[in-house]
Amino acid sequence: MTESIDKDSNVVYIGDKPFMNYVTSVVMQFVTKKRDEVVIKARGRFITRAVDVAETAKIRFLNNVKVKVSNVEIGSEEFENKEGKKVNVSIIEITLKKE
Amino acid sequence: MTESIDKDSNVVYIGDKPFMNYVTSVVMQFVTKKRDEVVIKARGRFITRAVDVAETAKIRFLNNVKVKVSNVEIGSEEFENKEGKKVNVSIIEITLKKE
Repeated sequence: MTESIDKDSNVVYIGDKPFMNYVTSVVMQFVTKKRDEVVIKARGRFITRAVDVAETAKIRFLNNVKVKVSNVEIGSEEFENKEGKKVNVSIIEITLKKE
Repeated sequence: MTESIDKDSNVVYIGDKPFMNYVTSVVMQFVTKKRDEVVIKARGRFITRAVDVAETAKIRFLNNVKVKVSNVEIGSEEFENKEGKKVNVSIIEITLKKE
């Protein structure tokens, strides 16, 4: 999983860049790219941050463009750590939708 | 919000006690208390932990008692911090349900 944003995708991956970068990315998806739906994805310790980004985008910036949380999925992925050991990491996908 | 568990409630609040305490609480709710539904609640930095608890309980401990994530809600609450300033904190509620 990369933390960059695919130009043709409505997915915003949350990582350790400055918090407002992600909020801006979400807002841009709705306002500039005219998306009806934006998906915020994160795993591990960035899950809390994904929820914060979704809530901040919803409450502070999108009062004109009304959006709501249409779906939240949680799950887990198995991956190999540096020592070659298989570990589980939790994931979240938050879908924001234009009302 | 307290981090203790109300004896008559199916809600498990996630705080900073040892991780496995919360997993055990969730499992006990299903196994000992025969609940059909258990709700895991957390706010702020404990949100990631709530997802980890839900996933751990689901994957590792409840293979006999089949449970699934039936609903995930996110939101935010306003509260006054020590300086009397109003701040928003994100919240999550994960509902696990017996299949």
